[in-house]
Amino acid sequence: MAENLKTVVSSKTKSIEIHRDLPTVIIGERINPTGRKKVLNALREGDFDVVRQDALTQVEAGAKVLDVNAGVPGADEIVLLRQVMQTVMEVTDVPLCIDTADPRALAAALAQYEGKALVNSVNGEEKSLSAVLPLVQEHGAAVIGLCMDDDGIPATAEARLAVAAKIIERAGQLGIEPKNIVIDPLALTMGADSSAGLLALNAIELIVAEFGVNITMGASNISFGMPDRKYINSTFIAMAIHAGMTCPITNPLVSEISTAVLAADLSMGRDDYGMNWITAYRKRQAAA
Amino acid sequence: MAENLKTVVSSKTKSIEIHRDLPTVIIGERINPTGRKKVLNALREGDFDVVRQDALTQVEAGAKVLDVNAGVPGADEIVLLRQVMQTVMEVTDVPLCIDTADPRALAAALAQYEGKALVNSVNGEEKSLSAVLPLVQEHGAAVIGLCMDDDGIPATAEARLAVAAKIIERAGQLGIEPKNIVIDPLALTMGADSSAGLLALNAIELIVAEFGVNITMGASNISFGMPDRKYINSTFIAMAIHAGMTCPITNPLVSEISTAVLAADLSMGRDDYGMNWITAYRKRQAAA
Repeated sequence: MAENLKTVVSSKTKSIEIHRDLPTVIIGERINPTGRKKVLNALREGDFDVVRQDALTQVEAGAKVLDVNAGVPGADEIVLLRQVMQTVMEVTDVPLCIDTADPRALAAALAQYEGKALVNSVNGEEKSLSAVLPLVQEHGAAVIGLCMDDDGIPATAEARLAVAAKIIERAGQLGIEPKNIVIDPLALTMGADSSAGLLALNAIELIVAEFGVNITMGASNISFGMPDRKYINSTFIAMAIHAGMTCPITNPLVSEISTAVLAADLSMGRDDYGMNWITAYRKRQAAA
Repeated sequence: MAENLKTVVSSKTKSIEIHRDLPTVIIGERINPTGRKKVLNALREGDFDVVRQDALTQVEAGAKVLDVNAGVPGADEIVLLRQVMQTVMEVTDVPLCIDTADPRALAAALAQYEGKALVNSVNGEEKSLSAVLPLVQEHGAAVIGLCMDDDGIPATAEARLAVAAKIIERAGQLGIEPKNIVIDPLALTMGADSSAGLLALNAIELIVAEFGVNITMGASNISFGMPDRKYINSTFIAMAIHAGMTCPITNPLVSEISTAVLAADLSMGRDDYGMNWITAYRKRQAAA
């Protein structure tokens, strides 16, 4: 078993530590126009109120890092991503996870960002490795590595481990340490393949045992096409935390999910005297 | 890693298989006067309607085996346990888990039972091993082995593994195979010790890796003294299933718990095409 590594990300004024002995770090997923028409339309119209709102409510609900994505078809992502980040940084002090598929937008965003960002993401494709890793190195950022490469998403946990190994190795050649790499083993939908959840859980365990790196996952794909998705997602997140996931990208406004994360931390002995659990309970009571 | 073993328990007409590749088997916990005044008073008065009701509703909610306990202070447990079992067998056909601390009541119950019962329980104490295991062997039953011995409940996962090993070895000396032993690693309350959940989860993993036996747990102790216990219990059960638990003793009438078990099975690839999940969803919809 590899030693558990600590990833630190920061804003100008706040640092967040991600480590398997600490409470799970929720990366709030909502500032993303993909599949959210309200955000998409607002960004198209240069209206950042929804972004402000999403930033504040997610932090209030327990997000410790915020993912920011400004991928609006037809818009200038270089400009828009910086505007979205600026908006978020004006209303909260949490570190950002810069989420873009465009290396130029990423470069501009990293140049603007004060602190140590989490970059979302690099993957095992040659094109991605060569475009993203130098930017991560140059700006001293941390980066999410997706377990897919030029051949697509591997169909076994072992093959996803191999992609993780490749990303970690290539990053290392540029001087990026494993502690600054957060691996996403990728959870595909169980509606298409009943073993997709187990495969992702097994991949987490293999990658953690081999490298001790932190693990993220966008855990809501898993339930696509199924009814009552929030129950599947919240249960799966708890199991993934047991497997070794440390910083899921998810929606903390779904109370089933934030509650499952807190209960999972409690069950893993990462909530001394249950204080986080009890504090959240009191907040639920006050809100009810 | 040891091979995963299959435990079969049965009633006169129905067999249930417990195995790590199959859906989780819920052992319904409710037919038990301990801490349930309504059951206690009814049994005291010779009224078995509550027992009948608890049997039917638990099976309807997904219990595949029913725990039966008739430990009423001052009552003749030999007589009462047989009456409770008889009542349950009249209204359902699921296998029973015979739950008593009195070896004479156990002997009488096993003599009456038609099928292969699960005995709840033996532990590592000399007195328990010598009283219970011969009855299990004589009646060809399966047995739950609790990870405690003459020194109490061990404070480490490794020491609980050692008690499991002792129980499995002593059973083996009587010809009871490991497949007929279901280990309960014991989950103590996290309110008293924040690491109690993690210890139980680690013990499950150690015991499964070493022996491949099936694992049960009365998973509700874990949240004793905490608010919103059902959320803790349901999350912990899902994590324990990921660790290797196959047949929790729990209350399937708590929808958070039965839903978490179904979602955990789905996540572990034990629910082909999500059919169990979808069926349960439709049932919830119809009931709403």
